[in-house]
Amino acid sequence: MESADALSILSAEGFVTPLGPTKPPARRQRDSVDDLFIRLRGGDRGALSRAITLVESAKESDQELASELLDRALPVSGKSVRVGITGSPGVGKSTLIDALGSYVVGRKAHLAVLTVDPSSPSTRGSILGDKSRMATLSAHPNAYIRPSPSGGHLGGVAHQTREAMLLCEAAGFDVIFVETVGVGQSEIDVRDMVDCFLLLALAGAGDELQGIKRGIMEMADVIALTKVDGDNRTRAEVAAGQLERALMLLPADPLGRRASVNLVSAVERKGIGDLWGQIEKYVDEDKAKGRFEWRRGTQAVTWMEDMVHRALIGAWLRRPEVQSATEALSAEVRSGEKTPRRAAIELFAIARSAWL
Amino acid sequence: MESADALSILSAEGFVTPLGPTKPPARRQRDSVDDLFIRLRGGDRGALSRAITLVESAKESDQELASELLDRALPVSGKSVRVGITGSPGVGKSTLIDALGSYVVGRKAHLAVLTVDPSSPSTRGSILGDKSRMATLSAHPNAYIRPSPSGGHLGGVAHQTREAMLLCEAAGFDVIFVETVGVGQSEIDVRDMVDCFLLLALAGAGDELQGIKRGIMEMADVIALTKVDGDNRTRAEVAAGQLERALMLLPADPLGRRASVNLVSAVERKGIGDLWGQIEKYVDEDKAKGRFEWRRGTQAVTWMEDMVHRALIGAWLRRPEVQSATEALSAEVRSGEKTPRRAAIELFAIARSAWL
Repeated sequence: MESADALSILSAEGFVTPLGPTKPPARRQRDSVDDLFIRLRGGDRGALSRAITLVESAKESDQELASELLDRALPVSGKSVRVGITGSPGVGKSTLIDALGSYVVGRKAHLAVLTVDPSSPSTRGSILGDKSRMATLSAHPNAYIRPSPSGGHLGGVAHQTREAMLLCEAAGFDVIFVETVGVGQSEIDVRDMVDCFLLLALAGAGDELQGIKRGIMEMADVIALTKVDGDNRTRAEVAAGQLERALMLLPADPLGRRASVNLVSAVERKGIGDLWGQIEKYVDEDKAKGRFEWRRGTQAVTWMEDMVHRALIGAWLRRPEVQSATEALSAEVRSGEKTPRRAAIELFAIARSAWL
Repeated sequence: MESADALSILSAEGFVTPLGPTKPPARRQRDSVDDLFIRLRGGDRGALSRAITLVESAKESDQELASELLDRALPVSGKSVRVGITGSPGVGKSTLIDALGSYVVGRKAHLAVLTVDPSSPSTRGSILGDKSRMATLSAHPNAYIRPSPSGGHLGGVAHQTREAMLLCEAAGFDVIFVETVGVGQSEIDVRDMVDCFLLLALAGAGDELQGIKRGIMEMADVIALTKVDGDNRTRAEVAAGQLERALMLLPADPLGRRASVNLVSAVERKGIGDLWGQIEKYVDEDKAKGRFEWRRGTQAVTWMEDMVHRALIGAWLRRPEVQSATEALSAEVRSGEKTPRRAAIELFAIARSAWL
């Protein structure tokens, strides 16, 4: 009970994923999970939203309910194509998601759009809300747009988005877009939860591409050059050629592939169908070679491990002897008497002697 | 001894900062640390480079030597101004660092330039090396440019850079630039090790700024709009006005300040002195209000804590019962029988019952 409280406090601070001991929920609550799940499966959007809110909750009392809901969702989840989308501000990410998403729902698919945004609360959300950003899509009956959870802590937001993804799949969505705003390590988190990672870039004024962060290109499975309309077309074609040559310098993936470069205009609705075709082709090849299933499994294991590590650090921080040693050593480090490395060695010696 | 080996293996994998038990180094090695330190203090660049290589080492046998070297450096470190510099590719970061650095060394300061770059080995390093990127600066006798460590793991690279910073200070450098390439959470890591964080941005073709990631703006203490030359000037002035208005929407810092927006041209060498003046002003105000010292202390404590947490997870992963449970649960998670959340609860129960 005490450690459950501890974890709950830490999780409320966004530090650890709550991993309290399993406490059977009251009968009434269990009924409501059953009810929620049945309605979610029946296509009730309100139930889906409430279910996502439940798994996002940091409250200790919600943990077992959330776990049960996810246990029920698991066997009927996993059937979607999960697409991560990243791109720096200015590349036209919202417009592209609106156009690509509209294409997808136009083909009778059901699409959920989730966002991983660890920005601090003070600037959370765009000036326009998610629905205004994607006006066409948000008006479509087959699309569901869920704003980013307000978890604050990065790993927390990513976990919440993973779990929201399972619930969307249980609710029958067959395509999931997970958008990252590119802060902190959100690209890496999103790459680790999707089947295909789409990088958006923009042909700039010079001979270089705008908005491609170093290290990002090799994470991309499919690349789209955006705003390829009007005067921009020639420039984009030159940039695409350069980009393709640059990609040749990167190692191919295990199936011998390199990211395809696609020219798209969201405004003129050009290249959108071809872009979706490239995403489907990538996923189909992975499925044919067993790589799709392998990646899904690996992602789930990594996710489990990360949850445990976060809980572990939380538990460590609650130990009284760790607290007092940390306090004493912090004072020495703060005053410059001891290097952080030396203090860390001494602090870690507690773990070593006591319980490792 | 066994856990020392374990930690050493983990650290070689870039997973944990090595925190092995202190093992007194052989006399001959200790002499060489003494010698290295004396030469480093005397301004020997070769000795500084070898010292940095030692603290970057993941070898268990180097850990105590590195700790001793840092212990000796600590009392004579901390005297520099530490400036973090970030900006997306295309904003002209290398050129700006070359120009700003040349201005700084021109004022008789000694400048060290370090880089935090967690990019994978396959694309590590720019096509041009660090010295070609900063041609003027690298030719100056008062400048020292150190390429990014090849640590691979992000936290590892950040720790190595922090320790390299202490050594540069002990070697007499009074200004340190820490550049981030903006991958993963490197901005956050760099913000946590400097006194002032400089964000570079570029006035784009439209009415929006290129290369400003969401969540980055509120981390900036000083902002520079780059390439403000020729035709670009008017556009940059408009963008600067917009940016200043946008900054008014963010909360001020505890001293009531908001990031200043500076127009600079590295090519025309314009605005560079004023930009440095803004950085000095920011740091001076912090020093006057005690915020400088407070931040340095807080950063050192966070650094210690992070080292311990990484070592802790490493030790956990070496426990046989954890390994076997992880293996069994991983299989269930991989096959989709169990949610990652449920498996994490079960795995964490081992820690709870055995040693928490």
